[in-house]
Amino acid sequence: MTTSEIRALFAVASRPEVVSLAGGMPNLTALPIDEISKVFADVILHDGQVALQYGSGQGHPILREQITEIMALEGISAHPDDVIVTTGSQQALDLISRIFIDPGDVVLAEAPSYVGALGTFRQYQAKIVHIAMDDDGLIPESLREAISSVRASGRRIKFLYTIPNFHNPAGVTLSLARRREIIEIARQNEILIIEDNPYGLLGFNEEPYRAMRGDDQENVIYLGSFSKTFAPGLRVGWAVAPHAVREKMVMASESTILCPSNFAQMAISRYFATQPWLDQIKNFRELYRERRDAMLEALDQHFPVSATWTKPRGGFYVWATLPEGIDTKAMLPRAITARVAYVPGTAFYADGFGTWSMRLSYCYPTPERIQEGVRRLATVIDEELDLRETFGPINRGINNV
Amino acid sequence: MTTSEIRALFAVASRPEVVSLAGGMPNLTALPIDEISKVFADVILHDGQVALQYGSGQGHPILREQITEIMALEGISAHPDDVIVTTGSQQALDLISRIFIDPGDVVLAEAPSYVGALGTFRQYQAKIVHIAMDDDGLIPESLREAISSVRASGRRIKFLYTIPNFHNPAGVTLSLARRREIIEIARQNEILIIEDNPYGLLGFNEEPYRAMRGDDQENVIYLGSFSKTFAPGLRVGWAVAPHAVREKMVMASESTILCPSNFAQMAISRYFATQPWLDQIKNFRELYRERRDAMLEALDQHFPVSATWTKPRGGFYVWATLPEGIDTKAMLPRAITARVAYVPGTAFYADGFGTWSMRLSYCYPTPERIQEGVRRLATVIDEELDLRETFGPINRGINNV
Repeated sequence: MTTSEIRALFAVASRPEVVSLAGGMPNLTALPIDEISKVFADVILHDGQVALQYGSGQGHPILREQITEIMALEGISAHPDDVIVTTGSQQALDLISRIFIDPGDVVLAEAPSYVGALGTFRQYQAKIVHIAMDDDGLIPESLREAISSVRASGRRIKFLYTIPNFHNPAGVTLSLARRREIIEIARQNEILIIEDNPYGLLGFNEEPYRAMRGDDQENVIYLGSFSKTFAPGLRVGWAVAPHAVREKMVMASESTILCPSNFAQMAISRYFATQPWLDQIKNFRELYRERRDAMLEALDQHFPVSATWTKPRGGFYVWATLPEGIDTKAMLPRAITARVAYVPGTAFYADGFGTWSMRLSYCYPTPERIQEGVRRLATVIDEELDLRETFGPINRGINNV
Repeated sequence: MTTSEIRALFAVASRPEVVSLAGGMPNLTALPIDEISKVFADVILHDGQVALQYGSGQGHPILREQITEIMALEGISAHPDDVIVTTGSQQALDLISRIFIDPGDVVLAEAPSYVGALGTFRQYQAKIVHIAMDDDGLIPESLREAISSVRASGRRIKFLYTIPNFHNPAGVTLSLARRREIIEIARQNEILIIEDNPYGLLGFNEEPYRAMRGDDQENVIYLGSFSKTFAPGLRVGWAVAPHAVREKMVMASESTILCPSNFAQMAISRYFATQPWLDQIKNFRELYRERRDAMLEALDQHFPVSATWTKPRGGFYVWATLPEGIDTKAMLPRAITARVAYVPGTAFYADGFGTWSMRLSYCYPTPERIQEGVRRLATVIDEELDLRETFGPINRGINNV
């Protein structure tokens, strides 16, 4: 598709009659708008001269302290000095890429992986090598094989990028046993781990999983975000990194943006200090669980038996794989005509894989709309399957997975 | 000085008894805090679901339209599509550097120039070539000579970075005749101009100067900021660039931060739509003019006759040059002991020049404190001059200017 075709498609997809299972926008309907309005007003009234002024390149000290308390919920013990506040997690990805990646370096990432991270790694001319996953997340044996094969080819591996909890887009979670094994493999091979964890507190049934950073402070850079536990519109995330890396990140961040917004940091700080934020996160979890249930139920009911999909225990996304020969990218315009949108699987691979797969988001629409969207999508898929029976599967060679 | 020495120095310099003529923090005491508090609260109450959500990578359409109205005050005619909103002007500098600079490329900049820009250009491994200024700003003949000499050396010039109005740190303003001449030189030599204009609306006596972008839409990238006309704590700036450059900047920005803060943009947009912002800028001008007057008066009264300084017609800074042999960097610890701080001139050069110069900011302290600070500083300088008479000048070879 050309850029203008994609734009035209998005313009149609954003119409209200289209059910979008494409976006990753958090659902903010559960937020206490009146209280937030008051919190924002109070920050200016009580501390406006500081909130509206330039701040520290590393981030506001009080917010950094609160961040260490939030991370303690996932077994991380960190000092506020270890934390750098960033303009969303995306900026942390950019800073890390800037510091570590030389053109041609290899970055290891799950197959599939977060599209925004892949884009940033590519901006710095990294070569991305994907590692296979199953329902328990990244497969340690595949990681070992990939390391050997990359090293045999003479290339340098800079880090492993992983989303252990409620993976975007795969919807799976890395088991605790595997976390330990992967930490061990990374240490043995002197490969840094970038643990990206925006959804960790949004698990549906259980206590938060223990972060990998909780078991390795030397070799894991942890990325956190307020975008999903509070709101993305303030653009506040953070990274926790070993001292020398953290110092380089602060210098690079100052060169990029001088400092993160004092107001945004103080507003979040005041929200976490004065509002029942853990209850609010529980509300988010309930809201997303209800939508996850609606989507899984609709998939069971409407999708063809030949399709498979993951069953997320948290987060925003289901990863569905259709029978071979159904190109989800080619199918998208027909889906949008049927008033439903999704993201084709190839977006989440650096190497053209993912042709028969798609990411389905359940975070934003109502449960009823989700069910209606899946029903519409199933109809489109059924038509594709009929065409395929009539004319045979598309042969896309190595693009099949 | 080592990093820890600099830190120790800053720790002392930030004590309340020290008059800081070092910082570039805008003076926010004139802001209508109650009204701003209400504006922020209203943005959330009326439009919280949008303000707290992810936004457009290019920036909020309504704010981009308001930005074109603000720029019209300086003779710029632009369409909102030409504008990209950035996380402060600093991010625009970073994006432009990322797009244009290959290691070893030459960037032309005034002598002296803004320390934050020099730092960013260096991050991308540019070689910075300084162009001389006088009281009318950048000297066209020096620009021509620099272009010839760089080209003769076989290097590639990527752009000219210039701050035409109320220069940081030089405190001078580029004359209108020279603006036209420099635009012509840049065009003839196919060198892009980066026009950085954070202080343009903060002139003391007159209408705003016509921006260079107003006379050249093809070859000038204009950078604006709300940090000085409103407040830096929201981190909102912008760039206006030719279409192809603007598109690349949006893509690079999305890769760096996904999108600028919707809340910050909508808060500024509502402030400009509902508050008497032009009157507020007039208040800022009055506030800074009063402080400029206090500083110039104190310099006349206390500084040695052998010193020279610029007489800014707007902005935040005076650039003072002491008699040769007085190393302002070496003198700084003694000044801080005397309870006054400034920034040594060498910070504003990529090549070690500026040894006898210093930047004096009048933006933040009260007029009384400014006068007291200059008085203290003059005492320190007098002691240095006495030492110099006794022991002779320091010989720093090529570092002298």
